[in-house]
Amino acid sequence: MAKQKHGKTAVSPTREEDYAEWYQQVVRAADLAEVSPVRGCMVIKPWGYALWENMQRVLDGMFKATGHRNAYFPLFIPKSFLEKEASHVEGFAKECAVVTHHRLVAGPSGGLIADPAAQLEEPLIVRPTSETIIGASFAQWVSSYRDLPLLINQWANVVRWELRTRLFLRTTEFLWQEGHTAHASKEEALEETYRMLDVYADFAERYLALPVVKGRKSAAERFPGAVDTLTIEAMVQDRKALQCGTSHFLGQNFAHASGIKFQSAAEKEEYAWTTSWGVSTRLIGALIMTHADDDGLVVPPRLAPAHVVLMPLLRDEASRPKVMAYVDELRGRLREARFDDRPLEIEVDGREMRGGEKGWLWVKRGVPVRVEIGPRDVEAGAVSYARRDRPAAEKQVMARDQFVAALPGILDEIQRTLFERATRLRSEHTRDIDSWADFAAFFTPRDPERPEIHGGFARSGWCGEAACEARSHELKVTLRCIPLGAEHERGSCVACGRPSEERVIFAKAY
Amino acid sequence: MAKQKHGKTAVSPTREEDYAEWYQQVVRAADLAEVSPVRGCMVIKPWGYALWENMQRVLDGMFKATGHRNAYFPLFIPKSFLEKEASHVEGFAKECAVVTHHRLVAGPSGGLIADPAAQLEEPLIVRPTSETIIGASFAQWVSSYRDLPLLINQWANVVRWELRTRLFLRTTEFLWQEGHTAHASKEEALEETYRMLDVYADFAERYLALPVVKGRKSAAERFPGAVDTLTIEAMVQDRKALQCGTSHFLGQNFAHASGIKFQSAAEKEEYAWTTSWGVSTRLIGALIMTHADDDGLVVPPRLAPAHVVLMPLLRDEASRPKVMAYVDELRGRLREARFDDRPLEIEVDGREMRGGEKGWLWVKRGVPVRVEIGPRDVEAGAVSYARRDRPAAEKQVMARDQFVAALPGILDEIQRTLFERATRLRSEHTRDIDSWADFAAFFTPRDPERPEIHGGFARSGWCGEAACEARSHELKVTLRCIPLGAEHERGSCVACGRPSEERVIFAKAY
Repeated sequence: MAKQKHGKTAVSPTREEDYAEWYQQVVRAADLAEVSPVRGCMVIKPWGYALWENMQRVLDGMFKATGHRNAYFPLFIPKSFLEKEASHVEGFAKECAVVTHHRLVAGPSGGLIADPAAQLEEPLIVRPTSETIIGASFAQWVSSYRDLPLLINQWANVVRWELRTRLFLRTTEFLWQEGHTAHASKEEALEETYRMLDVYADFAERYLALPVVKGRKSAAERFPGAVDTLTIEAMVQDRKALQCGTSHFLGQNFAHASGIKFQSAAEKEEYAWTTSWGVSTRLIGALIMTHADDDGLVVPPRLAPAHVVLMPLLRDEASRPKVMAYVDELRGRLREARFDDRPLEIEVDGREMRGGEKGWLWVKRGVPVRVEIGPRDVEAGAVSYARRDRPAAEKQVMARDQFVAALPGILDEIQRTLFERATRLRSEHTRDIDSWADFAAFFTPRDPERPEIHGGFARSGWCGEAACEARSHELKVTLRCIPLGAEHERGSCVACGRPSEERVIFAKAY
Repeated sequence: MAKQKHGKTAVSPTREEDYAEWYQQVVRAADLAEVSPVRGCMVIKPWGYALWENMQRVLDGMFKATGHRNAYFPLFIPKSFLEKEASHVEGFAKECAVVTHHRLVAGPSGGLIADPAAQLEEPLIVRPTSETIIGASFAQWVSSYRDLPLLINQWANVVRWELRTRLFLRTTEFLWQEGHTAHASKEEALEETYRMLDVYADFAERYLALPVVKGRKSAAERFPGAVDTLTIEAMVQDRKALQCGTSHFLGQNFAHASGIKFQSAAEKEEYAWTTSWGVSTRLIGALIMTHADDDGLVVPPRLAPAHVVLMPLLRDEASRPKVMAYVDELRGRLREARFDDRPLEIEVDGREMRGGEKGWLWVKRGVPVRVEIGPRDVEAGAVSYARRDRPAAEKQVMARDQFVAALPGILDEIQRTLFERATRLRSEHTRDIDSWADFAAFFTPRDPERPEIHGGFARSGWCGEAACEARSHELKVTLRCIPLGAEHERGSCVACGRPSEERVIFAKAY
């Protein structure tokens, strides 16, 4: 495979040149998604959606293995439901899609208008999240402690009216799952909150190949209405933090708002303790920002829609039948192999197209292993392949039988390499920082032309005061989380110098 | 298992007493879904959603096997898009959810109101179907004949504002899949339209155990904007027809409306030929109406969330460990068995509850095979089981090893029995009818108290005139379809007596 336009990369600009634009170009080059004619909404194209399907499959299995069942609740939330939980309103009821009419009619000047005679008595909100509408069901489903715990998950679309959008990372409509559970005791609900955070972290590390910090959000960063919000935070290649999933302990707040009450074993009426937790198509953005390079997407093998692409090189008609027969046989043999507990996914690209051009298409889409088969490979009984975690031009040759046996191991190795790279990047750009001067320097771009290049994650003391947290906002930095399970390390607050009990993570974030 | 309240059925009223109310009570007794606080929208409960997940899994595999890939398009459709295709507007742009604002603010008298300052310039419609918004993407994706065919499917929620709703059968929001394809030639698009109808019919017969008539809709019943609409029609137990899936040949209508153009092999600019096809959560309604009985739901084994439920009978503490160990071992053995190419799904219900009550819960939910294990079964090394296609009290006993080996075959037999019963019902209530007097008599309820009991499917001649079709509406009957592949049978129109070329299906319908 010839190098893409000698000396150039397949994606332009490079990460170094313009990270934000590079991201958009990777999404485009890998054919993952595009902006739609509807402001802020995206079209998820087949290759992007296949990534989401793989994430869904794995996560859904994990949710079921932890006792959850799927259900489906209405897309619309009556306005009065949103008004029930005061801080929830504050956080969610602002920028949202409001349905006010239920009919269109021909307007006076042609075209259609919302029928003034079909105005809804109570406006409906397109769900930005479903605590309130699911709470209404839970209130009906629960009457005794025997009905608890209630462990429900929903796969759905949600809408939050966003002013500035970026494909996958922040869009007006996005796809997600939202878990909602109700428990008889605070302890059980807390346990669930932590359990699901662990599920997310496990998924991020083992499937997305994404090292994450598990932590607790500060009060200022909590989900509106939650008592506690847990988060997994990743560092992507421009050293910013990306929140990848959250798990909320809602205490009895939503149970009070929705009336989720039960008769306890001691025959007392009590309010349930609830949790909610979610991850979204944003994870596709995390995958891109973490693993893609200047040649396009790099997909961790465990989530790859295709593990390997076979490209017959059909330069002349005479060799075509032999090459195609060899490719077919190779495909047949590979189909019997398994990787990560599922059959290998094999793409055969026999389109008539220059070999180089075709190869680059699959580089940009991030398929873990690319195989080109020409007449010489057929004669030699060999396979010439390239790995997406190595430079595009680096090819290796193996005997066919050996390749079939080796492929699952190669995929494992690629998966591990991606995780190790991301872990290395994160540790290289994580610092313990103890003074405000160092903190400010860490987060101040060295090159004013390239404001995106800054320090990374600062591990600093924090006294717990909102004012000190807010001081970081001056540098466009936020408190990402208070890591769980970290050693308590007495020190002083990086903003005010008063005593602090532990180091927390500060970073710029998406 | 004791008979439910001697002489009574588990669901009341029975089908005979009040079919419509019986349906609602089955949905409730089987814990499938419930009405939500949002007018016309339903909550799909875990048992109902699990049925949908199984349907999705099978259909998705069939779509992929026929070359389709999933993608996702915006929930919202700009009003101007709906205005593009004239007959589409007529049919769809009427009763729909109209989003007019993107923010809520505190109102003058407390509470929230749609912010007058945040009115959208162009209202957005919550998709009632996605031809127009997907067409906009297709127009961008297609430029050459090499980009065709484009074979896309979407799993999504859609909203059609309905005045009269009924769980699963007709709700304001429902879940569905919508396939959308574009082709270079009319022939190819037609082939696709018929291929997907075959996929639906195959799914209905082999999985839902639902015999269907494949046919073409008359012009009056066509999808708005389609050139031709194909349908699969089932007869349910009150002898009404239920449209279970449709496949539309859209000609070049939507290609013109959305600008889906391509350069042909001959380098001419041409409009693409498109199709669309869909099935929805209505199929759950079809499943219930076809197979459920006066004791509740009956699930065809191939779509069952659980194939078998094991119920330990724990009457005294002394026998508990032995019984539980026996149940555990049985579960372990059954887990290794497979049915319909997937592992057996086994539910163990060890809740403390009277045996009879628990057994009836699973009868009502329609699990194909119920097993009760008491101390005597343990001693005998036996299994006592009941099949959902037989009377609830009818039990059979088998040696454990024999049962494990026999279960997949029993499930096959139940699947077949359900299909045969439904087929028998349909043929018993399908008549060739050649005069208007007989036609009117066939569709006139014999008992004015029970208007739902009427003839069934009438196979009658039709001259092709809309007026003759409309005459059937006087009897609340519609022309369901012109069957495909039926023998041409010259005769006369049942409404006007003029010549007709073939028999068509008339019925009352949901």
